[in-house]
Amino acid sequence: MQQDNQITIFGNVGTTVDYRDVNGIPRAIFRMGSTPSVRDWAGGGWRDLETVWISVKVFRTLATNVSNSIKKGDPVVVTGRIRNDVWEDKNGEKRERFVLEASLVAHDLNRGASSFRRVDRTVTLAAPSPEDRDVLDSLEKSAASAPAA
Amino acid sequence: MQQDNQITIFGNVGTTVDYRDVNGIPRAIFRMGSTPSVRDWAGGGWRDLETVWISVKVFRTLATNVSNSIKKGDPVVVTGRIRNDVWEDKNGEKRERFVLEASLVAHDLNRGASSFRRVDRTVTLAAPSPEDRDVLDSLEKSAASAPAA
Amino acid sequence: MQQDNQITIFGNVGTTVDYRDVNGIPRAIFRMGSTPSVRDWAGGGWRDLETVWISVKVFRTLATNVSNSIKKGDPVVVTGRIRNDVWEDKNGEKRERFVLEASLVAHDLNRGASSFRRVDRTVTLAAPSPEDRDVLDSLEKSAASAPAA
Amino acid sequence: MQQDNQITIFGNVGTTVDYRDVNGIPRAIFRMGSTPSVRDWAGGGWRDLETVWISVKVFRTLATNVSNSIKKGDPVVVTGRIRNDVWEDKNGEKRERFVLEASLVAHDLNRGASSFRRVDRTVTLAAPSPEDRDVLDSLEKSAASAPAA
Repeated sequence: MQQDNQITIFGNVGTTVDYRDVNGIPRAIFRMGSTPSVRDWAGGGWRDLETVWISVKVFRTLATNVSNSIKKGDPVVVTGRIRNDVWEDKNGEKRERFVLEASLVAHDLNRGASSFRRVDRTVTLAAPSPEDRDVLDSLEKSAASAPAA
Repeated sequence: MQQDNQITIFGNVGTTVDYRDVNGIPRAIFRMGSTPSVRDWAGGGWRDLETVWISVKVFRTLATNVSNSIKKGDPVVVTGRIRNDVWEDKNGEKRERFVLEASLVAHDLNRGASSFRRVDRTVTLAAPSPEDRDVLDSLEKSAASAPAA
Repeated sequence: MQQDNQITIFGNVGTTVDYRDVNGIPRAIFRMGSTPSVRDWAGGGWRDLETVWISVKVFRTLATNVSNSIKKGDPVVVTGRIRNDVWEDKNGEKRERFVLEASLVAHDLNRGASSFRRVDRTVTLAAPSPEDRDVLDSLEKSAASAPAA
Repeated sequence: MQQDNQITIFGNVGTTVDYRDVNGIPRAIFRMGSTPSVRDWAGGGWRDLETVWISVKVFRTLATNVSNSIKKGDPVVVTGRIRNDVWEDKNGEKRERFVLEASLVAHDLNRGASSFRRVDRTVTLAAPSPEDRDVLDSLEKSAASAPAA
């Protein structure tokens, strides 16, 4: 078995999806947040843990379908591989951040209904809202890196 | 950590969804098939393995949303727990079959687009096609068993 | 993404490991049982669900290391792919059973300690106890089938 | 279904295990690295992706067994939940890092053999090598945060 890693995360999409062509390959990125809750044995109810935020990046057909399907606020499940995104910040210090390169993105039917359609590949590029523009721009650098084979 | 098991399966829904009220709890069942493929290193392409068929059972809100969302033929991902379904066949021999009690059912966006909507809980019971009736009837017995807490 | 399935199961090894050479490929098989428990909200403790039993089959280096490491009763975690094992029983009826073709077998450190060593490949074939012989013999047929690439 | 996340990572332990008592709860931390490889279709072999490094934190019985079992360099599989570790760096900027709070740590039998023993709970605290001291010290702050219930 190869060394590898896999993550599955349930949560909500926190930005509009940024969809574009990167060197001929469709690519979509968005942020999602997950707020796990654990049983509060003392109180008898549930207690929220801190929210985990992660950037999700997808390529090719999945990117196209994601841009046609996923809206800000949607409850989703995402599965993929964690990759390191390393850069130098303005102080010259090495910074790193995990990016989830997804092989699955799907609406969570625990939280609503979805209707499915097989689609042709022609899509128009999404226009992110201004308020999401900054977040997405900061993800641009990593978007330029090559996807895994 | 408790002993437990978890399975995730990608494939296609092979029957209409049977949705009904079992002792006051919404319950949906369907069959799904998964046909893994492996690299054919000699030929340079892919080679299909045998199809695995499994019965999927869901309860409560997820059952209602599944009945409102999933159609025969849809590409889905399902995650849940394997449970034993044991019975005696007509020769008096003990038979067993695994049933996947699902905590997630979702359309696979690798294979098309889905639109999501938050729904109210009022649903009409689905009417399975006659050709699926036999398959679903044979799942009835197991449907009567109590869901996990 | 290919259609596929993956299962992870925590439990205990229920037989000695049967290890042999099948057409030049090391192969090990054993049975394991998993007894999930769920919170009993009324009583405040835990309640056991029924035990799920499954046959586990491994090939090549993993098979050799499993035969050198795993003993009946050991607490393990096993990950792999479900495959159908189909045959005709003595009444001429088609029967089927799932077999877990594992890519990972490991001792669960939640339930004890393990010491690790890199091993050379020379192993002696294990001799299953007589009481496990019947169970393992019934798995033989499936052991003759070709492993996935 | 609750929102949640789960990660499984295969790799090698990169530090000695730091084991101590934190407010009466046994706690172990270590770093691990995973180097996925992907098929190089052009060349016919495999190509390594960049190594992903992550801090692993465990509590209670699992922490004790990990400190008794896991050595620097061991091939392991770790499963758990990603949690955010947020702090201010020396420039007053908010920094964050993911920590894997593990529910499973195990030796990977694909890469050697392990022998298992049920152990009593008495352990002596591990003494990290000086070269690992800095890495582990930088994890201290996060170790002080409360484990999930």
